[in-house]
Amino acid sequence: MAQKSAPDSTRRSERSRRAIYDAALALVGEVGYGKLTIEAIAARAGVGKQTIYRWWSSKGAVLLDAFLDLAEQASVAASENAGRDETVTEIPDSGDLEADLKYVMRATVDEFNDPKYDAPYRALAAEGLLNPELGAEFVEKLLEPQLQLFVKRVRQAQDAGQVAPDVDPRIALELWSSPLAQRWLMRSGPLTHAYTDKLVEYALHGITPRPAAS
Amino acid sequence: MAQKSAPDSTRRSERSRRAIYDAALALVGEVGYGKLTIEAIAARAGVGKQTIYRWWSSKGAVLLDAFLDLAEQASVAASENAGRDETVTEIPDSGDLEADLKYVMRATVDEFNDPKYDAPYRALAAEGLLNPELGAEFVEKLLEPQLQLFVKRVRQAQDAGQVAPDVDPRIALELWSSPLAQRWLMRSGPLTHAYTDKLVEYALHGITPRPAAS
Repeated sequence: MAQKSAPDSTRRSERSRRAIYDAALALVGEVGYGKLTIEAIAARAGVGKQTIYRWWSSKGAVLLDAFLDLAEQASVAASENAGRDETVTEIPDSGDLEADLKYVMRATVDEFNDPKYDAPYRALAAEGLLNPELGAEFVEKLLEPQLQLFVKRVRQAQDAGQVAPDVDPRIALELWSSPLAQRWLMRSGPLTHAYTDKLVEYALHGITPRPAAS
Repeated sequence: MAQKSAPDSTRRSERSRRAIYDAALALVGEVGYGKLTIEAIAARAGVGKQTIYRWWSSKGAVLLDAFLDLAEQASVAASENAGRDETVTEIPDSGDLEADLKYVMRATVDEFNDPKYDAPYRALAAEGLLNPELGAEFVEKLLEPQLQLFVKRVRQAQDAGQVAPDVDPRIALELWSSPLAQRWLMRSGPLTHAYTDKLVEYALHGITPRPAAS
């Protein structure tokens, strides 16, 4: 509806929307999902409660949209760093799968190490563990679409003969993406570029000895 | 102290300890870590609050010991299933790394699929995400000792020339253990023996094509 109003009203809606996202992300990091309320988000954002209810049905829905927006911003920032005009919506295909995966995984490490993402993402992940409905939305709308980018890139590599044809791409990608997610969630080890480089190398080449290429 | 009392008293202490563990695990699954109290554990276990405080300083400490005990029981059960007399405190070394890892990962899948472990383990993991102190204890006392069993087995395989000497065993093991943990936590895919078999195969042999063995 708002999108069809006059330009001034559209800009005002866009400002409110952004204020609501910022408030939701800040609050969930501060008080946790359990104590987060629509009232508190409205107060922090400086909007009326009804403004939030007009666009979203629950605090979980607000938070998920706030995350999707945050992920999109991160993607835009990554594009700008890489000197590209377009948003990163796929994994680059330079023809060198190892280099492309290392590039994307290094960027993901940088994101996980950024406090702006850490607190809210951690709060949502924790709530998703206990609340199956929110967890399913989190997986469907946020996690799975990101993983599908890897599926696509592995398929391209299979077409190019660089990955064995009988490999299941949906399982293969977990060999590099899940260890990083797990280390971050559990704080069970350092998150560095050297670490994700090794994950990619082991997954592509295996840890058992390979005969020297002839 | 209790251990040095007369046999009757020892048996009584052991019964109380087990009742406290059972109560803590049941309650954390039912009400979550946040609402768990020493009072509620005592009431459910049918012991006095002071009995709990004599042995533990906090609810986190009780819960962690309850988990360690649960993990040990699982290990004893696995030994009995395998027809062995001793508790499983290491990964078997049959000389065939792939078979040994598949065996252990299949047993782990069965554990994750058992509701007895699911609710309490999930509650503790979720709390560990948000509470760095509890998370660190969880990693140090429960997670890391289990992962070190894989480190030891990968080192044995390196000594036998079955894993490349420059591979870091602490990182390598994450290629099969983290995807399973992540799928279980996020409920992002089915947990089957076929799935963990593939994780082990990809990690050992890599997903890029290997020349046929000559």
